[in-house]
Amino acid sequence: MTPENSPEALRHREKMAKRKAVQDAEVASKIIAEKGLLMVHTGPGKGKSTAAFGLVLRALGHGWRCGIVQFIKGAWDTGERRALERFPDLISWHTMGEGFTWETQDRARDAAAAKAAWTKARELMADPDVKLVVLDELNIALRYDYLPLSEVVAALQGRRPGLHVAVTGRNAKPELVEAADLVTEMNLVKHHFKAGVKAQEGIEF
Amino acid sequence: MTPENSPEALRHREKMAKRKAVQDAEVASKIIAEKGLLMVHTGPGKGKSTAAFGLVLRALGHGWRCGIVQFIKGAWDTGERRALERFPDLISWHTMGEGFTWETQDRARDAAAAKAAWTKARELMADPDVKLVVLDELNIALRYDYLPLSEVVAALQGRRPGLHVAVTGRNAKPELVEAADLVTEMNLVKHHFKAGVKAQEGIEF
Repeated sequence: MTPENSPEALRHREKMAKRKAVQDAEVASKIIAEKGLLMVHTGPGKGKSTAAFGLVLRALGHGWRCGIVQFIKGAWDTGERRALERFPDLISWHTMGEGFTWETQDRARDAAAAKAAWTKARELMADPDVKLVVLDELNIALRYDYLPLSEVVAALQGRRPGLHVAVTGRNAKPELVEAADLVTEMNLVKHHFKAGVKAQEGIEF
Repeated sequence: MTPENSPEALRHREKMAKRKAVQDAEVASKIIAEKGLLMVHTGPGKGKSTAAFGLVLRALGHGWRCGIVQFIKGAWDTGERRALERFPDLISWHTMGEGFTWETQDRARDAAAAKAAWTKARELMADPDVKLVVLDELNIALRYDYLPLSEVVAALQGRRPGLHVAVTGRNAKPELVEAADLVTEMNLVKHHFKAGVKAQEGIEF
């Protein structure tokens, strides 16, 4: 008996063949071939913005033009920003926030920054050359009522058919979740902060 | 009364000042300044590999050399791969898998591919110039017992002090979670597949 015909190998092959049949049937059942997705990354865990930047990286590999608007962070994300400088032809990056809200302690200034960011977001969403727009930490701006929720959701829902939009931030509003095609919640199972380790350059900023 | 002195603005400022004090105290309490982290992205949701590629993007912005080993996927991830070609000086990419396991249905071939990938992973982890190693879908290889769990966990725990490692894939083994510094679980709240939309080029591959 060759290893390929061992009972274990046969069982594995059978199981995987079944799995493949399920997978193929699922793929075949999809009827809408191309649709710009509204994606939301929320939850208390790490990786919400990071996964959005991963989407940007993938999109760049397909030669897509991408727009990024940061609603809240300011000094943060220097790593991504510097890396994306190698794609000057494809990336349009706008940081409108001036730091975390608990750094500024000025509601009026934060609200004005959020409004300016939203204006830029609408511009990018209207640009027919842009295929992916990341609205980083938009959820925070919505949570603090810096922007009118119904107007924002309506604009996202009414996006151009081929435009993909990724929204990040904790506490996504139910109305936004309702409007989204794909919602992922990042949950923290374990964090090195609890073990007394500082935020790590290159990994967290 | 100027808007900056309205009761609402004062309340907001006070709340944010308290939040900042908590935040500052938390940062000050961290005693381990630099440590290579073992990060695990698991769970049934989207974004596990994508967030790992986002980490790579951030690391590249800091000028770090990064290694990527794909344990299972083959034809997948063409977008990231093409985008990372703009960093030939910093990226070392290795795809050892030959497609999802339910595509191949050949346990012996998959196990051999996983072993070859693990050898490459150990090489990258030993290279003092590499600061971040992504072991994409290693969890799947462990789940199917293609690799000895205890040996893999021991090697990850015994990594060089400054080396960051990100491991992705569903169903992370408890032993790996135990050894990790940071574990994030991606959960699916909503998925467009359910609404009959096909996997979208540029977003999902």
